[in-house]
Amino acid sequence: MVRIDKLVVVGVGLIGGSFALALKGAGAVGRVVGVGRGAANIYRAQELKIIDSGGALDAATFGDAELVLLAVPVGQMPDVMRAIAPLLGKKTVVTDAGSTKEDVVALARRELKASLARFVPGHPIAGTEKSGAEAAFPELYRERKVVLTPLKGTSPRAKALVKGAWESCGAKVFELEPREHDAVLATVSHLPHVLAYALVDQVAASRDAKRLFSYAAGGFRDFTRIASSHPEMWRDICIANKKALLAELDRYGRGLARVKRMLERGDAKALEALFTGAREARDRWLKNRE
Amino acid sequence: MVRIDKLVVVGVGLIGGSFALALKGAGAVGRVVGVGRGAANIYRAQELKIIDSGGALDAATFGDAELVLLAVPVGQMPDVMRAIAPLLGKKTVVTDAGSTKEDVVALARRELKASLARFVPGHPIAGTEKSGAEAAFPELYRERKVVLTPLKGTSPRAKALVKGAWESCGAKVFELEPREHDAVLATVSHLPHVLAYALVDQVAASRDAKRLFSYAAGGFRDFTRIASSHPEMWRDICIANKKALLAELDRYGRGLARVKRMLERGDAKALEALFTGAREARDRWLKNRE
Repeated sequence: MVRIDKLVVVGVGLIGGSFALALKGAGAVGRVVGVGRGAANIYRAQELKIIDSGGALDAATFGDAELVLLAVPVGQMPDVMRAIAPLLGKKTVVTDAGSTKEDVVALARRELKASLARFVPGHPIAGTEKSGAEAAFPELYRERKVVLTPLKGTSPRAKALVKGAWESCGAKVFELEPREHDAVLATVSHLPHVLAYALVDQVAASRDAKRLFSYAAGGFRDFTRIASSHPEMWRDICIANKKALLAELDRYGRGLARVKRMLERGDAKALEALFTGAREARDRWLKNRE
Repeated sequence: MVRIDKLVVVGVGLIGGSFALALKGAGAVGRVVGVGRGAANIYRAQELKIIDSGGALDAATFGDAELVLLAVPVGQMPDVMRAIAPLLGKKTVVTDAGSTKEDVVALARRELKASLARFVPGHPIAGTEKSGAEAAFPELYRERKVVLTPLKGTSPRAKALVKGAWESCGAKVFELEPREHDAVLATVSHLPHVLAYALVDQVAASRDAKRLFSYAAGGFRDFTRIASSHPEMWRDICIANKKALLAELDRYGRGLARVKRMLERGDAKALEALFTGAREARDRWLKNRE
């Protein structure tokens, strides 16, 4: 098991906070320092014993850190990387939890310079629709997948530390190319988020919104759960992964057009085949997940 | 509270079975007779004490029934109504649990003839993605909405019996015009079902399906829960409510096109506004539901 003397978490929300709590729970970390834009959230994180103290974008915070986790919305990543690059110690390993990887990798190449070999891009595929330090809990990563997208020049020591840290959180660690990662996540995560936001928007924008919502039930609730996710974070993910997401939205549009044609011609057989195939695929997936 | 001496449930699945169990639990029913296509399911329903005995499409089953619930997929409704019309007793009240109402009302006008005044069209807005007698449970309707769409000529006694039965199940009963009902449900139920089926189909149809599914997580699971729903039932709902559903699919397509334009021009502000508005609308809805 890894042992991290000093961990710095930049962005102590659901993701960063749960990482700190999980490592503390596993006895894998000494001191945890939290850095964030919102003083109230950092204060709350300290109260909740997620972090031991609040830090700043300075050498005292980052110079002797063994591991730094960047858990901010992807859109804040440029500012954060630029700010920390000159502060990092010679041995400090940096990883991130960004939901897109091509953009984070390109950014790291531009900004991290001397520390690039000690940067291990990562993405824990876990979360809830809640956000902020209050939402953090130590079991978030248990049995969940974490994808690392290391570069050619990434140091084996750095990769082993990050992998070990996530494993201490109970996660299973996989490796993908950044582009592969972004394409996969566009389909199974970014697309459904946009679809859920769009459905709630459609209902809310109706003249009849109040009555429509009053008849919405459990199916609507679960379908739209992810539309309660952090808007800034999802704005950034969509912009960062725009190309892959647009391609998936196009494919989805073609799929819906196919369903519409089935409906228009009243093709019950084709509809049932589509629904049956989808149900079977989903049920197989659920079974394999267990 | 109502007291029903003999209840006949046609289609002893999640919906019909839960109705029987809830009425039994409330002590509101004497004998429950189940009628269905599948002998195995009827046998299982008897084992599970959902029904007291199996019946058939004959006068012995229907002639002395106080209440008949038709809980079959909408597509089977024509055959069922035609078959029971000549069998119903002079006092037998009939209701249904169909997810669409315009088509059921039109059908009843055509088929039920002498019993039309004792037919109370209904739709319990409750369910899970599971189906069959095994899936039935007595709490399904607790605190849920049931919509009745009575006709001008519906007898007050019949309406009171059906309303009372649903209230004994713990449900809250509302009235809508059939067309209103179908439009509302197209938006908040039928549309999300089609969207969820379409997303699973898109993933399953990918060359890369296995890997895509392997990275799908909790968001995908909840978004697609309703894609595990009964394919035949949803085929029938889509066909029966085709006009309203097509209109909602068109609106949804226009909404997605708007999101795509925001993405294409990298309009972070517009995306965030959309996501924030949707999150707030959903959170308000959830709060009001409590």
